[in-house]
Order: sequence, then C-alpha cells, then structure tokens
Amino acid sequence: MKFEVSAKIAYEALAPSTLILNLNPFRSDGQVILSENLSSTPGLKMKELNSLSGEKRFQVIEIPETGKITINYKAVVENKFEVIPADQLDDVPISKMPPAALFYLHPSRYCQSDKLYKFAYNQFGNIEHAYQKVIAIRDWIYTNVEYGGYTTPQTSAYDTITEQVGVCRDFAHLGVALCRALTIPARYFTCYAYKLHPPDFHACFEAYLGGHWVVIDATKLAPVNGLIKIASGADATDTAFASIFGNLRFMNMEVGTVLLDPEFHGVNINTSSQGYSYI
Amino acid sequence: MKFEVSAKIAYEALAPSTLILNLNPFRSDGQVILSENLSSTPGLKMKELNSLSGEKRFQVIEIPETGKITINYKAVVENKFEVIPADQLDDVPISKMPPAALFYLHPSRYCQSDKLYKFAYNQFGNIEHAYQKVIAIRDWIYTNVEYGGYTTPQTSAYDTITEQVGVCRDFAHLGVALCRALTIPARYFTCYAYKLHPPDFHACFEAYLGGHWVVIDATKLAPVNGLIKIASGADATDTAFASIFGNLRFMNMEVGTVLLDPEFHGVNINTSSQGYSYI
Amino acid sequence: MKFEVSAKIAYEALAPSTLILNLNPFRSDGQVILSENLSSTPGLKMKELNSLSGEKRFQVIEIPETGKITINYKAVVENKFEVIPADQLDDVPISKMPPAALFYLHPSRYCQSDKLYKFAYNQFGNIEHAYQKVIAIRDWIYTNVEYGGYTTPQTSAYDTITEQVGVCRDFAHLGVALCRALTIPARYFTCYAYKLHPPDFHACFEAYLGGHWVVIDATKLAPVNGLIKIASGADATDTAFASIFGNLRFMNMEVGTVLLDPEFHGVNINTSSQGYSYI
Amino acid sequence: MKFEVSAKIAYEALAPSTLILNLNPFRSDGQVILSENLSSTPGLKMKELNSLSGEKRFQVIEIPETGKITINYKAVVENKFEVIPADQLDDVPISKMPPAALFYLHPSRYCQSDKLYKFAYNQFGNIEHAYQKVIAIRDWIYTNVEYGGYTTPQTSAYDTITEQVGVCRDFAHLGVALCRALTIPARYFTCYAYKLHPPDFHACFEAYLGGHWVVIDATKLAPVNGLIKIASGADATDTAFASIFGNLRFMNMEVGTVLLDPEFHGVNINTSSQGYSYI
Repeated sequence: MKFEVSAKIAYEALAPSTLILNLNPFRSDGQVILSENLSSTPGLKMKELNSLSGEKRFQVIEIPETGKITINYKAVVENKFEVIPADQLDDVPISKMPPAALFYLHPSRYCQSDKLYKFAYNQFGNIEHAYQKVIAIRDWIYTNVEYGGYTTPQTSAYDTITEQVGVCRDFAHLGVALCRALTIPARYFTCYAYKLHPPDFHACFEAYLGGHWVVIDATKLAPVNGLIKIASGADATDTAFASIFGNLRFMNMEVGTVLLDPEFHGVNINTSSQGYSYI
Repeated sequence: MKFEVSAKIAYEALAPSTLILNLNPFRSDGQVILSENLSSTPGLKMKELNSLSGEKRFQVIEIPETGKITINYKAVVENKFEVIPADQLDDVPISKMPPAALFYLHPSRYCQSDKLYKFAYNQFGNIEHAYQKVIAIRDWIYTNVEYGGYTTPQTSAYDTITEQVGVCRDFAHLGVALCRALTIPARYFTCYAYKLHPPDFHACFEAYLGGHWVVIDATKLAPVNGLIKIASGADATDTAFASIFGNLRFMNMEVGTVLLDPEFHGVNINTSSQGYSYI
Repeated sequence: MKFEVSAKIAYEALAPSTLILNLNPFRSDGQVILSENLSSTPGLKMKELNSLSGEKRFQVIEIPETGKITINYKAVVENKFEVIPADQLDDVPISKMPPAALFYLHPSRYCQSDKLYKFAYNQFGNIEHAYQKVIAIRDWIYTNVEYGGYTTPQTSAYDTITEQVGVCRDFAHLGVALCRALTIPARYFTCYAYKLHPPDFHACFEAYLGGHWVVIDATKLAPVNGLIKIASGADATDTAFASIFGNLRFMNMEVGTVLLDPEFHGVNINTSSQGYSYI
Repeated sequence: MKFEVSAKIAYEALAPSTLILNLNPFRSDGQVILSENLSSTPGLKMKELNSLSGEKRFQVIEIPETGKITINYKAVVENKFEVIPADQLDDVPISKMPPAALFYLHPSRYCQSDKLYKFAYNQFGNIEHAYQKVIAIRDWIYTNVEYGGYTTPQTSAYDTITEQVGVCRDFAHLGVALCRALTIPARYFTCYAYKLHPPDFHACFEAYLGGHWVVIDATKLAPVNGLIKIASGADATDTAFASIFGNLRFMNMEVGTVLLDPEFHGVNINTSSQGYSYI
C-alpha cells in the first residue's frame, strides 16, 4: 500500500549538540521510498548513515548553536507484507539459523530473556508449534498488561512482566524477551502506523519463524499491513527515534500517516492460521 | 505435640566478632518451652533479647578471640495449632486491623509487593474469598517455582516470580509479597520442621485472615502441625538464623527435630476447607 | 521551640476507601503537642493508632462513599533537640545495642544496605570515628546527588547511589542504607520543617551513635532544630504521610510550619564537632 | 608476537543439543592465524560463521546424541598491537563517528550505561582528555572492585559498581558501561592471555579514542601485548565462549597460551602517556 508519512519535531538547543534521528522508513526489496524530504529550520548539516547491525538508516545532525530548531520529514512510501500460512512458520533449528537470526537470541538492555526462561517455559512451553507460541505470548501480553500508565525510559521487559502496565515500547520489549527465552530469535520493530490513534511512532516485534521475520503487535492498536517499517534492532536502545548528545529541550512532535491508495483492507494478525512478514 | 529440637553450629572466628542467633523457639500462649539449653565451646558470653517488632527472641554472643567455636542448642517444646474453618478466614477490613497486622502490609527488602500489584490482581483478583486467594497463591508458587537450583542471599520475591526457582526462603518470600500485594497482611515464618528431609531450618509464611495468622507452606515439604515456630517477621532480614558481625567462617551445621509424643498425624493445608494457625 | 504546623489535603473518592494518615507530630518526652485538631469535610470516622515498631501514631479514616473530601490538620508543638559533642557520638558495640537499635541494622525495601557493603567500606571505611563517617556520608550524598529531577515511588537507595538524582526521600534512603552498610543503625525520619522552601513534608535520617539517634539532613535544606518529628521507621514504607486503600484521586495539599516563638536561631549540622538529637 | 593457543572442553550431552563456540581467535589485518585445528571426540558436524555485528567468527556444532564429547582446539597465531601516543587518543565528535562506533554507545544487557550518567560524570567528568578519563575509569575499577568473590551469570555493571566484587568479565562490563556513560564508544573484548594465572579465557574492554579501539584491562592481570583477540561485541551476551542449546553438562576445560617467539617484553597500559590498540 502507498502512504505518506510525516514527522515534525521541535527542540530548543541550550548548547551546541548533535542529534541522531532514526525516523526515515527503511529501504528494502519490498518497501520502496518513492520520495522523501528531510529539512530543518534553520538549515543544519545532516549526514545519512546505515547501521551495520540491525536494519536502519539514520541521520546525524549537527546543531552548532543555541536556539529553536524544527525538523520536518515527509516521505511517500510503498510498504509490502507477505502473508504466510501458519504451518510454514515453525521453529528453525539453531544449526540452520543464519548469523543475522542467531544475533537476536541474545538478551539485551531492555529484553532480559536470560531471566525469563522458566517463566516462558512454564507459561508457553507446552504449546508445540513455534508460531502458536508467539501468538500465545502476544495474547498473554495483551490480556495481562494494561496499556498506558506510568513507565520510564528505564522500564524493561523484566519490569513489565510483573508490573503489567506500559506503552507500545513495553509491550514490544516483553514480546521480544519472551520469544528469546523460548529460543525464538526476536527483534524490536519501529514504524509509522496507519490508523493508530492518536498518531505517533509505533513499536512492535518480529519473531523469526520458518525463515521469516513475522511482525507481531501485542497492543493490537493498528492493522499490521498499515505499518511502515523504520528499523529493526535489539530493542529501543539501537532504534530510538531521536538520540540527543548535548543539551536539547524537547518541545513538540507531530507524526502523521496518510493513505494514498484509494482503499485499505486492514488486517490484524488475529488469526492463528497465518502470519504477516514485512518484506 | 511434643518435640525435641536441636541445632549444632560450628564457626571459625578469624577475628573477634559478635554473633546473633535466632534459633530458640518462640514462647507463646500455645507453644511451651519445657526445657532448653544453649551452650558453646569454648564458653562464651551470651545475652537473650526480645525483639520489639516481629515475634522472636534471640541471643547476642560475643566472641572475644579467634579460633573454632561450636554452638549447641537443644530444647523440648510443645507446639500448638488451631484448626479454623475456611469460612472464618475472610478479609479483615483495613479499618478493623490492629497495628500489628497493618505493619505487615508494607513491602520489605525481599518482598517488594509494591511491584506486584497488577500481577497479583490479574492472577488472583477474581477469586472472591481471601483464604481461597491465599490457597491459590500457594498452589501457583508450588506449580511454577522449581524447588532447588541457584539462588543467592540477595534473591528476592521480585526475582523469584520470574526466575521461578528457589528454596523454602524464596517460596515464602513470594507468598508474603503476593499476599501483601492483595492487601492481605503477611509475615515470614521460620521454624523447625518435623519430617523435613534433609533436616534443616525451614521457612513458611503467615497470612492474616479472619483475625488469625494462618501458616502456609508453599513448598509442601513438611506437615504444618509439625512446625515449631522460631520467629515471625517482615522477611529473612529480621529473622535470620544467624547474623554475623566481624569475621566468622561457617564450618557446619546440624539441625534436628524429633517427635517425643507416641503418635503423629501429619496434616498439610492441602484442603481449601480449613486453615492452621500457630498459637 | 514552639511551632504551629498544618496540613490540608484534598482527595476525590472514586470508591469507598480507607485512608491511613501519618502526619501528626510524634509525642515524646521532649516534643509536646500543646494542641491539635484533625477534621474532615464531610465529617468522617477516624481512629488513632500507635505503631508497635517504629515511632509513630497514625489515623485510620474510613471513607464510606464517593465524592470530594478535605482533611484539615493543625497543631501547636514544642520540639526539642539535644546538642551532643562529637566525641560522645561513637560506635556502639553490637553486644551493647538494645533491640530497638539492632532492628535498624537490617536492610529494608528502599535501603538495600546488603548490596552496599563494599561501596560503603571503600568510600568511608578508613574514617575512624563513627560520627565522622556519618558526616562524610551526608557530604558525599550532598555533593554527588542532584536535588530534584525524576524519581518514582519505587526509586530506592540502590538506584540513587548510581543515578545520583532525587528528592529528600531519596537522600534520606541513601543515608540510611550507607549507615547500615557500615553497621551503624539508621532510621528514616519524617517531619515538618521550618524554613523549608517551598513548604512541604520533609524526610531526613537518624544514625544511632553513642546511644543517641542523631538527626542528619543530607539535603541541607532546612535548619535541623526547626524539624518537628512525625515518625521514625525503616524507610518510606512504614512512614508514608498517606496510604490509600481503595480508590482516592489526590487533588492537592498544603503544608505549613510557622514559628510561634519570638526568635529562632537556626543550626545546621554543618560542623563535625557536634550532633543534634531529637528528644 | 607468535603464540600457540589451545582450549580443550568436555561436556556430557544429556540430550541432542547444539553448541555454539566462540573461541577461535579473530582474523584481522594484524592478527594472522598461521594454523588452526578444531576437532571433537566423537567427530561432530561443525560449521563456521561470521557475525554481522561485532567482530567474531564462531562454530555451530550439532550434537545428535547423548554421551560425553570433548572439543579440542589449537592454533598458532601472530597478534599485533599498535602503540599510540596519548595525545592522539582524544574524543571523536559524534558527528564524525562511523556507524561501527556509534553502535557501541548504546547500553546493553550487562552494561546499563543509561543508569550511570551522573555517577560517571561526577566521578570522571572533570577530567578533560578522553584517554585520561578512560585511564581513570580503569584505575577506579582496579582500586574499588575486589577481584574474585561471588558473581552469577546475571551480574551486570549496575551490580558491580556498588557490590564492588567480580571477575574479569565484571571488570570489563563496568569499564564498558562507564565509557558509554561518558559518550565514549566501548566494546567488550574476549581473548587468550599470555601470562594469565591460572590460564583461562580473559575479558577486557576497548574504548574508541582518536579513531582507535584502545584495549584496557581493568584487572591488570596480564600484559596487554600478550592478548590474542577472540571477539569484540556489546558485552558477554554476544561474545560468550560457549552457548548451549539443549542439555549439556559442563565437565571441564583447559585453556593454554604458549609463547612461540624467543622473547617477550610484556607491557601493561600503566602509563598515561600511551595506549595499545589491537590491529
């Protein structure tokens, strides 16, 4: 589907600073960036880089002096999802996994899977098929974790599993951690999300099943085929929308996702019979 | 029932030290200490104190010089448990609780109930009767937490709820924390335990229900009426069998509980129809 | 000195609830409550209790129906502090400590002294005199921890020692934890504070030195002899100004401390030559 | 210098399992693998992979049936270190860092730099030159953290900074975390270490200074130019010597590092005038 995505962010620089933005949609075989424009007021020096690990491109922006700055991003993107029958989404044996999947078995800052082995095994271990395990993880999170409330930038999956309150970031971290605890590689997935209300950046997770990275939204807040991928990574540490070095005071942000195609048939991964994989 | 309990502990003092032992059974209206003797080799200065909070008496022992010391304790004790029908073990309204119960609603070092509200509510909140909630907590712990394994002196209920492995101390801490999270006052309970194999000190928890402190053993390792109470407190911090100030190297310990009555009819709190309360 | 203290707190009850307030100044040999009045609009059933452990009295208030409630407290109090030369504020040997001091060697929910032994020893262990250790702890906290910022109800001394930001509660928790880690009994101390700006409840800590509980304010925000004690306890768990059971939405609070004596000579425990102990 | 390194590891397979070994020295421009041999008894299927992120190559070994297995590795390696004057080891501005350095600014599972900003800034912030900051970090760790003692596989930098006891892994994690907290990219570095007693695998850290990855050994246990690099990564999660999937019981391990050159002049990075960078 074709979408226009946009983000407008304003900061006040209290000192010369460097800002790293990770809000450009990812370029892939399936997701085509038809046009994009990133500008700032006043005009700033920007450089685009690609990460070595993870899947993302990001902008390094130098802010040489104090004062208010506004960043404007707009792009037209065509995203693409593959629909895969559940029976093709089974466990991949460790010895068959590529390095890019093995990497996502490790615990990370916000996804301490090493502390959740027994919990995951006791709760989901008796489910035989890998994809059904992931669906059960998603539903456990959706049922037990209250959306909203009070979390901090340091809240991690280890907190969310017991405190059971959080936002999309926390839902995704917990999904990632539980998959990894069951030896299913899992990545944190950031995106624009069509029909997300109120409009904002969104976070989901991807589980490696049958050789595919299947996208899962434990919040169930937006149709999965309306997601426009920005980045995949270990967790929120390496996929943050904005990383600040120096002293920038956040002022405000507006995020938008507009459908450019005439029609949209939203699907959620509600069925246990098929999964959606971002291409 | 009448029991002989004994403990023999050896240390090597590497420096002059002070040792606080909390292994004498608690004296109460129901539990009578028929005889007891605490001695050491070489002979050391000892002083018995009673705690202000918690229910315990303890020995402060001065060890003026280096060398090996052995502590020998032996007592004949008659314990007593009251059997209370489940329907009398309901919630006590906050406004009717005495200060001694209110105190045990607070989170403590090893029982961070403030982090477990939603977990407890999601898991046990729909059970109506307070005693049945506590029974469900006990069974959840028994089913999900593996007895044994690898814990440290710093392992707390917040760890055990997700890592799901532990010993009696960890089972008891988790029971205490989950009760408090549901606004049921709960205490950590240390004891000698008849028929515990291998013989050792034991830890359970008490929940305040219908005006009684009902003893619960989430490990299900020993009959509840064969417990000889040593202390009740907030958690393992204020009820440790031995607290060392200085430099004592632990060498070995033997704990014994022998039945002196001709017969013993062990009961576990396995039924949901009645609870046992230490008198 | 003679002070008038007051607190006015408003809630909206969203369900029948119970509120426990701990804002009445503590009665002691030295601190005399000349008059006090606690009332509510609408009139509610209240009951005053005294804690068994800790030093506090508190009000249990039943709120039978929904709606706005306002609590008004006002008292005239004469506080008293003893000035003690530093050389009398030495370590008390463990074997000479009363149970009421031994209890405050234990780690607690927010003061995990068991995790700070080496830190405390490396940082303060070479200071010989116990009172000078406590002064050094206070100054380390004052120098390294930024007042203000971002903490949550779950922030503990273990967080504050590395995150190094917090409010009076966090400063006090860290002081308590570091004292206990050095085998100096320490309590959390809540109070009204004359000359605190903006006016609010305040928290300090007390260290047990030479048989006295010496009051220490690591924030250095208010003169120590202008403190009117409310409670001493393990930490913020058992000395909270308000504990809510049910569903009360906090609306607002005003706290006041007015001098009734003609003159006030404020002292801070800035000197290392003498300590102040609340009587 | 030329070294022979070797590792012999025995397991008992209690079930069919997969073992990932990361003990082959890294191949780089400077470090040449002159010969190597990895074999097992009984003969097992092995596959070598290279990581995408991090710098390592690793073996995926399938163990199809139960029974004892022994892995034997031996290699002749020529390592190489570059000596760089301290004044060339300054901060690299964020806007000049390559993606491979930016990645190592993120907090990770065992290196929660996001929780240590203020601690790092208060302790090391007033040191002007980046390399001198890193030297001060190394010396602070060496002075305050006791080598040895009691840590678990879950011990992280956030624990070590206050508990102040640990092994090479813990020293390295803390070094990494403190560098990242000061916006200096840092990696975990695993290696064979000549003259390490008793012989074992070793862990150090690398700080990104002046465009070089400077190797730092906070334990000061082995000469830096006697290190043979195995891997660089985020922390111990992605550089573990052995990762087990299935059920393998560890039996024993022998690690060896033998000098093949006639002479060795060991250097430690003890001076603040120059740093060593692995090539």
